[in-house]
Amino acid sequence: PPPLNVPSAALLAELASIVGPANALCDTADQAPYLSEWRGRYTGRTPLVVRPGSVAEVSAILKACNGARVGVVPQAGNTGLVGGQIPHESGTEIVLSVTRLNKIRAIDKAAHAITVEAGVTLTAVQRAAEDAGTLFPLSMASEGSCCIGGNLATNAGGVAVLAYGTARDQVLGLEAVLADGRIWNGLKSLRKDNTGYDLKNLLIGSEGTLGIITAATLRLFPAPKDVAVALVALPDLASVAAFFGLAHDQAGPGLTAFEFMSQRALGFSVKHGPVRRSPLNPLPAWSVLIEVSSHEDQRARGLLEDILTQALGNGIAANAVVASSLSQSADLWQLREAISSAQKPEGGSIKHDISVPISAVPEFITQADALIERLCPGARPVAFGHFGDGNVHYNVTQPEGAETLGFLARWDEISHAVHSLVIEMGGSISAEHGIGRMKRGELVRMKGHTELSMMRAIKAALDPNGILNPGKVL
Amino acid sequence: PPPLNVPSAALLAELASIVGPANALCDTADQAPYLSEWRGRYTGRTPLVVRPGSVAEVSAILKACNGARVGVVPQAGNTGLVGGQIPHESGTEIVLSVTRLNKIRAIDKAAHAITVEAGVTLTAVQRAAEDAGTLFPLSMASEGSCCIGGNLATNAGGVAVLAYGTARDQVLGLEAVLADGRIWNGLKSLRKDNTGYDLKNLLIGSEGTLGIITAATLRLFPAPKDVAVALVALPDLASVAAFFGLAHDQAGPGLTAFEFMSQRALGFSVKHGPVRRSPLNPLPAWSVLIEVSSHEDQRARGLLEDILTQALGNGIAANAVVASSLSQSADLWQLREAISSAQKPEGGSIKHDISVPISAVPEFITQADALIERLCPGARPVAFGHFGDGNVHYNVTQPEGAETLGFLARWDEISHAVHSLVIEMGGSISAEHGIGRMKRGELVRMKGHTELSMMRAIKAALDPNGILNPGKVL
Repeated sequence: PPPLNVPSAALLAELASIVGPANALCDTADQAPYLSEWRGRYTGRTPLVVRPGSVAEVSAILKACNGARVGVVPQAGNTGLVGGQIPHESGTEIVLSVTRLNKIRAIDKAAHAITVEAGVTLTAVQRAAEDAGTLFPLSMASEGSCCIGGNLATNAGGVAVLAYGTARDQVLGLEAVLADGRIWNGLKSLRKDNTGYDLKNLLIGSEGTLGIITAATLRLFPAPKDVAVALVALPDLASVAAFFGLAHDQAGPGLTAFEFMSQRALGFSVKHGPVRRSPLNPLPAWSVLIEVSSHEDQRARGLLEDILTQALGNGIAANAVVASSLSQSADLWQLREAISSAQKPEGGSIKHDISVPISAVPEFITQADALIERLCPGARPVAFGHFGDGNVHYNVTQPEGAETLGFLARWDEISHAVHSLVIEMGGSISAEHGIGRMKRGELVRMKGHTELSMMRAIKAALDPNGILNPGKVL
Repeated sequence: PPPLNVPSAALLAELASIVGPANALCDTADQAPYLSEWRGRYTGRTPLVVRPGSVAEVSAILKACNGARVGVVPQAGNTGLVGGQIPHESGTEIVLSVTRLNKIRAIDKAAHAITVEAGVTLTAVQRAAEDAGTLFPLSMASEGSCCIGGNLATNAGGVAVLAYGTARDQVLGLEAVLADGRIWNGLKSLRKDNTGYDLKNLLIGSEGTLGIITAATLRLFPAPKDVAVALVALPDLASVAAFFGLAHDQAGPGLTAFEFMSQRALGFSVKHGPVRRSPLNPLPAWSVLIEVSSHEDQRARGLLEDILTQALGNGIAANAVVASSLSQSADLWQLREAISSAQKPEGGSIKHDISVPISAVPEFITQADALIERLCPGARPVAFGHFGDGNVHYNVTQPEGAETLGFLARWDEISHAVHSLVIEMGGSISAEHGIGRMKRGELVRMKGHTELSMMRAIKAALDPNGILNPGKVL
């Protein structure tokens, strides 16, 4: 498509009249929360942030912007980590925030389905499910702020993927507004529907480049009756892999989390996070937070202990601590969740969100550690994440005492090298965070020409003027 | 796109030279197995059936046909029920059979992944998984003949959807050939990959209209250690629904099947199927085949009995028989699986494969029965299927002693009425069989203009000449 236009004063006035003056933010201070993200890596400018209060308003905004060929950046909870929700510095794109679309429209317990708008926070969905005696399993560190619209636009992952899948696996139906303002009503609570193309999954994970999701019907699950959590010490990565194989075989779908962390990752969390004591001492080379759930009363702990007895008995595991109260469970989870923010006091970190086949995780980490030591001696890899999904947050913290900005200036070089290794191993350079602005250049390395041209053809078919989240993903 | 061409003699010769003379079938007798399906509802004609032996040959065939603007009908195990795999009577479309692409390319037990070609039968995949000590859960009556390529092209369902999902949920990666012959290598065994649009799910369920799937990497699961099966008698549909709620809450992901059948469905199966004795006498108004699986030894039967004790105790269930051997389990499953073929000796049947929200199944059957009695007094509804998925095979057998052809002549009229009720209730007119030729006209009633135009835009983007399975789905 031809280049997009700079929005005219007339267009800005029209948009403001659609949402009303209180929801059309032109003032720099009012706009600020929408123009940067918490890691501070991306900032942008915009002539206008619009906050529509209904699907009809979203539709009217897109119709106007499409007619004027003006770019629109959709935004939900603004917790994305790859800059997908932030406009460019050009200041020519409208920001469309869905946070006022925040109604829970319906909950049908017998059908195990809930219909929510895009601006509902993940925590609010979890609570509504719980109030109905069911479970909405999607869960991640940002759940108090992130919203369903963003979760679906980026196909968010988190800590419950192993047993329940990613965000897309939770979706029964969608409502979305297309680039030209047409509203697609694909809301439904059916478990099976083989009528036509899977438009739902096409929009999910497209990061707002094919349509703006305004509501979704989500699956609910029977809540487990018993949950048990342990922190397990393992001597090496081969043992982590063996322990995963054992736990997966023994617990099947009852293995609801298997999070791993290196000695350094756990150490940073203990040193800088809210839980200042490690339950395992000395800090093990590797530790695993394992969670087992059961739909039978009083059954999870017994099953978890059986697994641990086997793992300790055959020398896979070196030590283990089983939480004996809800507060101990919460502490173990906090140790895991705090790793990301605990890197900050140690200086700059170059972060990666990669996946490889589960069987290749140990080899990946071994090779990546050697690579980092070659490229930047003294830099400190902090490896942790969702072992059971093959998803490693392979972050690299600066050498002790190094100059932070100088280290971070090497982001592209170091990422490029780590991603090369990932691609060689048949992995993904973005397991759960998406492409956004950050990985757009890297995407071309991972995808062949055929796949990129299929993506471009679909983008052109659904958004011929290219107004939706321009310059993101593709 | 402009109308497709009749294939020239030169094109036919080119195609024959690509696959070799033994795999280019022009003789009517050789072609016959490819030109009709087992229900006998669809037959077609073709100048040529090609049986490529490699992905490169599939690519060369499509490149040639796309250049000549000639239609291609992909076919795998030819077990589809909606005519999607059968060419039209015009005799102008090439049939491309993938059955020679029948290699299991790789199995990685640690990554719980298997890579198979499109012509591998479902049974062969199940066996390979079992040999590796794992489970490939997709299962359906046609599993000995149907092939993975067709399973994925139609997003097949079957009896294990409740716990494991439909065919699409089993897929980690795909290889496919596009309309112009380009090969998309999307094979990978990653659990998480958020890099770009979900092309995999777009091709799955598109019934060969967007590309021809040549291979897939599929998920394997830890095999349950214990499985228990029972047949349960219930007095009415409300009790079936209550029993499902109870079993689902108690067993969670351990509830691996919940199949229901009306008195008439079970009666036909006992009268005409391989198992000539009902374990429940007299035949209950409704019966449920329930299967519970556990990853703990000797645990499934205890859990199933707990559920049955509760259901019998509170009056939801009237009676129950628990299988006490593998052969008894197999008999219970045969009673369920034989229902479809057991309708044949009773005369003609007008068949529907519909879904509604789980909570609406009882209301749907009640209203549909009344509708049938109004439209065609004496016609015999045979309702059965996957209650836990909201998926009812609502078949209508002719009145006793009626004239079969006269009854079947009312197929469109009766289907139209049943589908109207389904659409009113927010359901789907094809839960698991797809659209094919059979439901193309009905699709327009179910989908709004926006959704159809999105589908058409995607079809035009990926297959601009419209050569892939023309006149199917859209």
